[in-house]
Amino acid sequence: MTIEMTHESAPGRTKAVQPSEQSEAEVRANDRAHVFHSWSSQAQINPMPVASGAGATFWDYEGNAYLDFSSQLVNLNLGHQHPDLVASIQEQAGRQATIQPAMASDVRGELARRISEVAPGSLNKVLFTNGGADANEYAVRLARRVTGKRKVLSMYRSYHGSTATAISLTGDPRRWSNEPGDGSVAHFFGPYLYRSAFHATTEAEESARALEHLEQVIVLEGASTIGAIILETIVGTNGVLVPPAGYLPGVRALCDKYGIMYIADEVMVGFGRIGEWFAVNAFDVTPDLITFAKGVNSGYVPLGGVVISDEIASFFDNVPFPGGLTYSGHPLACAPGVATFDVFERDGILERVKDLGERVVAPTVQAWLASHPSVGDVRGTGLFWAIELVLDKATGEPLVPFNAAGADAAPMNAVAAACKAAGLWPFVHFNRLHIAPPLIISEEDLVRGLAIIDEALTVADGYVV
Amino acid sequence: MTIEMTHESAPGRTKAVQPSEQSEAEVRANDRAHVFHSWSSQAQINPMPVASGAGATFWDYEGNAYLDFSSQLVNLNLGHQHPDLVASIQEQAGRQATIQPAMASDVRGELARRISEVAPGSLNKVLFTNGGADANEYAVRLARRVTGKRKVLSMYRSYHGSTATAISLTGDPRRWSNEPGDGSVAHFFGPYLYRSAFHATTEAEESARALEHLEQVIVLEGASTIGAIILETIVGTNGVLVPPAGYLPGVRALCDKYGIMYIADEVMVGFGRIGEWFAVNAFDVTPDLITFAKGVNSGYVPLGGVVISDEIASFFDNVPFPGGLTYSGHPLACAPGVATFDVFERDGILERVKDLGERVVAPTVQAWLASHPSVGDVRGTGLFWAIELVLDKATGEPLVPFNAAGADAAPMNAVAAACKAAGLWPFVHFNRLHIAPPLIISEEDLVRGLAIIDEALTVADGYVV
Repeated sequence: MTIEMTHESAPGRTKAVQPSEQSEAEVRANDRAHVFHSWSSQAQINPMPVASGAGATFWDYEGNAYLDFSSQLVNLNLGHQHPDLVASIQEQAGRQATIQPAMASDVRGELARRISEVAPGSLNKVLFTNGGADANEYAVRLARRVTGKRKVLSMYRSYHGSTATAISLTGDPRRWSNEPGDGSVAHFFGPYLYRSAFHATTEAEESARALEHLEQVIVLEGASTIGAIILETIVGTNGVLVPPAGYLPGVRALCDKYGIMYIADEVMVGFGRIGEWFAVNAFDVTPDLITFAKGVNSGYVPLGGVVISDEIASFFDNVPFPGGLTYSGHPLACAPGVATFDVFERDGILERVKDLGERVVAPTVQAWLASHPSVGDVRGTGLFWAIELVLDKATGEPLVPFNAAGADAAPMNAVAAACKAAGLWPFVHFNRLHIAPPLIISEEDLVRGLAIIDEALTVADGYVV
Repeated sequence: MTIEMTHESAPGRTKAVQPSEQSEAEVRANDRAHVFHSWSSQAQINPMPVASGAGATFWDYEGNAYLDFSSQLVNLNLGHQHPDLVASIQEQAGRQATIQPAMASDVRGELARRISEVAPGSLNKVLFTNGGADANEYAVRLARRVTGKRKVLSMYRSYHGSTATAISLTGDPRRWSNEPGDGSVAHFFGPYLYRSAFHATTEAEESARALEHLEQVIVLEGASTIGAIILETIVGTNGVLVPPAGYLPGVRALCDKYGIMYIADEVMVGFGRIGEWFAVNAFDVTPDLITFAKGVNSGYVPLGGVVISDEIASFFDNVPFPGGLTYSGHPLACAPGVATFDVFERDGILERVKDLGERVVAPTVQAWLASHPSVGDVRGTGLFWAIELVLDKATGEPLVPFNAAGADAAPMNAVAAACKAAGLWPFVHFNRLHIAPPLIISEEDLVRGLAIIDEALTVADGYVV
């Protein structure tokens, strides 16, 4: 097979996809000998060399195409090799690849201005970081310094990054091997009607009880000790948990009542994933701090940051902010950020995400509840959905145990393998399959991908007792 | 004045330096309104817009040229807009801007291989990060997991980054506002003959007593609790403290004796700053882990990492490493890393750094000890030097107090202002002026820059009592 050089169906396709100069064998050999991989047992992985990508598709060295329903790690919001993002990087590299954070930079200031324009309320300043983890580290630091209170509340079933404070905030098993952690994080339960911690039966009841629970945690942990509550606006990797109406405004009200800063982690969900610049805009709520990364420039260059309210920013007018980094506001990273704004506006990305989500994805996946015995729940919005697979719809027993590994994870691995064999790269976490393609995916490819998943779910159906 | 477009004296000059499309006023306005700056009181700074750079020089919007003796934040080892690095980024952006860490990538594997080749001993695997701070976070995590011991020893007068564990390791005042910290870091004194903590009078005595001190700290903190010792091979921002012969091998021996991992932080000093790929190569010592960032690709794209010994890497063959990040081994960041190796080898960068350091810098700055009453000590190697300014050579009283701010810092600010007025951008920290130009600086510019500093030191002389 040869590598297909012109993939016509994606609006974000590149004009020139070039294969690597190294052979597949060379790439594999260097990787196995010298690359130490994230979150992995090094001898138990076999990373696939990727030759090229365009739009919503990438190719391996044998020319096999994969429709990218994970947007890599839910970062490629504008897809592989978007020509405008590529051009912005090439132009910026030729003009000014980098300059240190203490200087003023045109592209850094321009991106900060554009972000401030779409952020809610008085969130008008941006502290740029290298990614989502340090964005959350610095957001917590800002909140602690302003309030003079150190404790942070975060959700079970959450991911906030892997540096020391960020992994302590995290409410999933990736935290366990890194404990003891930050020393002043307490975890609470968020709304999750399908597996309600509050014995609720409606969204409204779940929201009310989750807020009652959160207030109890605040009172019992001590409002006078709590500087911040951090939560993903829509919980991402841990389940695409869309908060019920009223929940986030309720969190905001509790923060106001108790003098706590509200940090919205939008690393995964910001910049268009649900058809909004920032997901909080869909829930009528204004946090004190918003963290972002990934979609801000589709991860073409490492970039993250914190959008800061005027109230918090002004605290540091004459008090030094105790943090920083060499690559803060890196010009080469900011250039594709500015280009992202231009593309979103020109191509109506936010509108198309909402349209495709409502018109194409929602009815298709909701139909799976009836057609697949293994589908226990579907939920999502925009181009961000989770399909929860179960052994028994009545009990909701998951297809694989929580945090399954090895043989325990075999059923989900089989579903993923079926997707890959049919040319789709899935995002799988625990007993869930997520749908998170690039926002520029063509309707044709989106429909085709959903059909591949529909077929792969029959593999899951085979495990249902 | 117009911006000088062809700066001929630097071997790493770019062919096309383009000014910004925005006016200086627009750049300043966006910066002040929307950019939140590292380590700063936001209302007390006035960041300078930088229009362009080439080789060892950058220009403001009025066309004033600055010889960059700080290499920005000691990261631009190959200077501003090096054409080979720029080309590598532009080519990689067009080919494959990014791919997620779980895949194999040609350029990621190639850079890991090249780094492994120049790293000492069995350090053959690389965990890539976004910068120096997370590199140190992950190095500590590796050491803790392998040894099962949590405490880390680090030096007073050190900087290791600003995320939670990294700032806890840090032994300078930037840690203070971030305490309480990691909860299991203890600080010790390193060798620093000019201000000896050990009442030593020779380098040999300083080395022996510093090792004796370190062993006492190990014993009193409890070897059974200590997973790692981390130290900058040459302390960077906190003073260009070159360890005396025998000190680092002595640290290695203590680590071996007590079952402790030795982490060498080479974020600032690696990749040529002293004429070595890794500075440990100059001191005949092999750590268990080396962290790097900055010079690996001159910071043109955010990149850092940990070089890992076979012994540590193999521990994770069948045990998952509990850490990771979306942009680990980012292809766009790795491409200028590979180009850095090519340029270093083709242009003999390591050799020229040693030559310029020994032949040009060393005799010039050593002469200042006699010619300037304010110069208390000079020290360094390669293109990495510190000039320590004092009020009184007999007592060594520093020109400004430790951690001086505001009016207390005026004398050093005056020295820096004299440098800038003469067209040189200095690196100033506390009572020291550091010399850290790009490694591609021409001999002519190096001599010219040293002459500017020589003249600026007369300002410091004026404060001597």
